[in-house]
Amino acid sequence: MTQKIKGFIYLNGKILEMKQAKIPVLDHGFLYGDSVYETLRTYNGYPLQLKDHIDRLFRSAKSIHLPPPKNKKQFKAIILKTIQAYFKKFKKEDVYIRIIISRGFGDIGFDLHLCPSPNLIIIMKKVSVIPQKHYQNGVHLILVPRIRNNPKALDPNIKSGNYLNNLLAYLEAKRKGGFDAIMLNAQGHLTEGTRSNLFLVHKNKLYTPHLKSGLLKGLTRSLIFETCKKHKIPLIEKTLKPKDLFLAQEAFTCSSLQAILPVVRVSHKKIGKGKPGPLTKKLMHTFQNAIEDSIRREHCLDS
Amino acid sequence: MTQKIKGFIYLNGKILEMKQAKIPVLDHGFLYGDSVYETLRTYNGYPLQLKDHIDRLFRSAKSIHLPPPKNKKQFKAIILKTIQAYFKKFKKEDVYIRIIISRGFGDIGFDLHLCPSPNLIIIMKKVSVIPQKHYQNGVHLILVPRIRNNPKALDPNIKSGNYLNNLLAYLEAKRKGGFDAIMLNAQGHLTEGTRSNLFLVHKNKLYTPHLKSGLLKGLTRSLIFETCKKHKIPLIEKTLKPKDLFLAQEAFTCSSLQAILPVVRVSHKKIGKGKPGPLTKKLMHTFQNAIEDSIRREHCLDS
Repeated sequence: MTQKIKGFIYLNGKILEMKQAKIPVLDHGFLYGDSVYETLRTYNGYPLQLKDHIDRLFRSAKSIHLPPPKNKKQFKAIILKTIQAYFKKFKKEDVYIRIIISRGFGDIGFDLHLCPSPNLIIIMKKVSVIPQKHYQNGVHLILVPRIRNNPKALDPNIKSGNYLNNLLAYLEAKRKGGFDAIMLNAQGHLTEGTRSNLFLVHKNKLYTPHLKSGLLKGLTRSLIFETCKKHKIPLIEKTLKPKDLFLAQEAFTCSSLQAILPVVRVSHKKIGKGKPGPLTKKLMHTFQNAIEDSIRREHCLDS
Repeated sequence: MTQKIKGFIYLNGKILEMKQAKIPVLDHGFLYGDSVYETLRTYNGYPLQLKDHIDRLFRSAKSIHLPPPKNKKQFKAIILKTIQAYFKKFKKEDVYIRIIISRGFGDIGFDLHLCPSPNLIIIMKKVSVIPQKHYQNGVHLILVPRIRNNPKALDPNIKSGNYLNNLLAYLEAKRKGGFDAIMLNAQGHLTEGTRSNLFLVHKNKLYTPHLKSGLLKGLTRSLIFETCKKHKIPLIEKTLKPKDLFLAQEAFTCSSLQAILPVVRVSHKKIGKGKPGPLTKKLMHTFQNAIEDSIRREHCLDS
């Protein structure tokens, strides 16, 4: 019962088949989740917000004292070259990209000098698109009992190989019939989804949990901020509670992989009229243009 | 600058050299830290508390919905056989044993059906003994600002591949000149070390943080409880604060790998007289007998 996954893995300069790409058991990325990563995707063959993803990868790495094995310019060149290799090997279709830096091979223990050579890994595969019906009808999320990691314990802004908090929250939501989970912090404030940020609409204004509630400053979240500014859509970043979500007229989540996804039920209760609302639909449309603009700017394409 | 590590790795039935033992990049143990583990050691060739370690490994696995690839009896047989293989290949010396079950190979995503075949890994190597001087003189720990994971986010009783919380706490302690860290919870209560439990002595009574403060129920901690009961040493499990530590006459940490290690300074302040105290020394001695008794009982040896 093994799956064939279309794509390949770049590992320290070599391009390998999915099953052939292997790392040592003694890579601390495996032993301790001692690694950082970014996920992004291409649109029309171009990676969206590549610079921002590389910048954040470097910030995550710095937060765990992990020296990236290449500089930012080299990262960019390697990723673009690897995308071209994908197009050559398979076909020109949009790809999912996961960039990982792991601590590397070393004896068991926490001292950083044990692992002198971090590993650079890029997983590239056909982008798995969320079924269109979810964008049309919206999804059902569950407010799970599992709380989000406290930033003073492990900051959600570090995108690391420590992902059990999110994974277990997801499984709790699935067991309750949801598409995914929404997590609170210890104070009972809304934080984020397991791989997405959350937005609400209340009286024609957008609201999103404040970063101080303990959540990832998502790059799609930032692009929505830009879009709202450009289109004069009021957007307020503040501490939000579950009741704010249940009283909202609309809700959606966003991420680099899913873009904007309408949320129509939370923990078996309808949000608004139980279908994607007008502001969400407007943003979904506007956001497509924002993606195209961003790619044109970053990759210096003619408009 | 690669190190030669004496030992080998058992991987799904095969015994491999340290550098040759590899797992796929797409093992979710690598991607998400989605794995569980136990560490233990042998004394005179026999693994201490083997049954307890296997029982806890299975509890950790259950907590993250990870089905162990063998039953407990098979685990025991494999571990004992692998220890014999070590003695044959190297020499009869005490070994460090790390047992890992990882989620296994699968496409990116959180759904459990993606990974039908968990991996079983046993790292076995010469036990690294903490220098004798640390047992004689005691060590210096640092109360670090990083707090322990909240059990509602990720329970410290799950020994998993998500270890950045502990690792980053350790690095904070090292930077401040300590041997290791002591972590508080969000309420400011003492929890544990990065890989050990904590005990204090106050007026000839032993104190240790209550499990409800959010810490691992260590197996060495449990063995100390038994020893105290047997020797009528008063032992109190309760919520403790940093001031309790600073007012203590003695302190020590314990773990399967280090046994009992005296603590003589915390965050640059002396504990008691700044040297291992009488009750700690008595326990260190008594505990040696407890280890021998436990091994005799478990492995049915003649006394």
